[in-house]
Amino acid sequence: MSRLVFTTITAKTFLLPHSSSSLHFKIFKSSSSSAASRVSTMASDSSSSSSASSPSPSSAIDFLTLCHSLKSTKRAGWVKRDVAGPESIADHMYRMGLMALIANDAPGVNRDKCIKMAIVHDIAEAIVGDITPSDGVPKAEKSRREKEAIDHMCKLLGGGPRAEEIHELWMEYEENSTTEAKVVKDFDKIEMILQALEYENEQNKDLEEFFESTAGKFQTDLGKSWAAEIASRRKKQG
Amino acid sequence: MSRLVFTTITAKTFLLPHSSSSLHFKIFKSSSSSAASRVSTMASDSSSSSSASSPSPSSAIDFLTLCHSLKSTKRAGWVKRDVAGPESIADHMYRMGLMALIANDAPGVNRDKCIKMAIVHDIAEAIVGDITPSDGVPKAEKSRREKEAIDHMCKLLGGGPRAEEIHELWMEYEENSTTEAKVVKDFDKIEMILQALEYENEQNKDLEEFFESTAGKFQTDLGKSWAAEIASRRKKQG
Repeated sequence: MSRLVFTTITAKTFLLPHSSSSLHFKIFKSSSSSAASRVSTMASDSSSSSSASSPSPSSAIDFLTLCHSLKSTKRAGWVKRDVAGPESIADHMYRMGLMALIANDAPGVNRDKCIKMAIVHDIAEAIVGDITPSDGVPKAEKSRREKEAIDHMCKLLGGGPRAEEIHELWMEYEENSTTEAKVVKDFDKIEMILQALEYENEQNKDLEEFFESTAGKFQTDLGKSWAAEIASRRKKQG
Repeated sequence: MSRLVFTTITAKTFLLPHSSSSLHFKIFKSSSSSAASRVSTMASDSSSSSSASSPSPSSAIDFLTLCHSLKSTKRAGWVKRDVAGPESIADHMYRMGLMALIANDAPGVNRDKCIKMAIVHDIAEAIVGDITPSDGVPKAEKSRREKEAIDHMCKLLGGGPRAEEIHELWMEYEENSTTEAKVVKDFDKIEMILQALEYENEQNKDLEEFFESTAGKFQTDLGKSWAAEIASRRKKQG
């Protein structure tokens, strides 16, 4: 398992442009289960490793360059069902951001935080890719890989409040520990079933499994009402 | 010119799923220059046309369904230069949202507002598509079409504070009238040149024109420093 993690991260580092001269990855071929020892960032630009209050231009562009793969990686659920021209991971997070933007006010929910969580929640996939249940990776191992990735991305930003905010948003979502996390987890499922319905309409496909896998799993009144609206539209079209 | 507007909007409405039963577009084949008369929304669900404080589930799903085309429409600048697998409009706005998320605090800049503006600023392209300078559409005409589209999208939300916020964010950006708009306009150019550099690296292309068209046009210190970082990386790779 640890070899697989190593391979995945190695492959992804090749996506960084050659011009990213301030960033050098040091890969340890360790068989240890300690994930942190496997990848570290060696920064020739001292600003990249400082804990300045905000990222240097070099750190910011390194981070954004890494996030390029969120735009070019297609969502695995659609690829596996032979959807033509499937959306990217970024496409999915983008519409979730819009969902948070237009959502009703609800008690104890910070809408701006939901928007930020929506565009952050899958960000670790820039390194680990889109791992789906059919990949056979245990949930705990998937979570471990993603935690390692988010730690790496925060280091790339040079630490500081921006990195801390991203880390917190990601952890809250991962742990389903706040009201905002419950709302955004509902958006994650709603975005998926709405996209499934759109692919069914456009490409004459049966994507029933996406509706089955999410049915009854919505945690908020808002999520339940939007999911019911989508299910109702799907039923009407037969 | 008015015929072209009509054609564009008609084509886009076909992207709506058949299940969107509460939404019917009425297209007027008018030769009038009054844009507002050309497209209107006839909503069978009364909640869609009310001015409730937040969108009904039906209005929300109509709006999000319309925004699907932001994920499926490829950015025209790359398509015209034969970039393979070009990003979508949503991909572009997504990474701009990340830019706002990681940006330094700056005097008088509301970062949460910048994030929202980043994911809203091209939203009218869900209806009018990605019009580029080489399309030969005068700037005023492009702006008019997009204003018509944003009005339509806000109506689709049923009015209310969410629609008003989206309208204001879009107008501020369009008119470059606030500090946040100047920051986000810089992000728009930075995201484009960073993406250009990535396509140059990955696909062995010369996309010099994107760097030329943005040079010297950054309005903020943050924008200037990030753009300089990207230009420096490009220069190093020769």
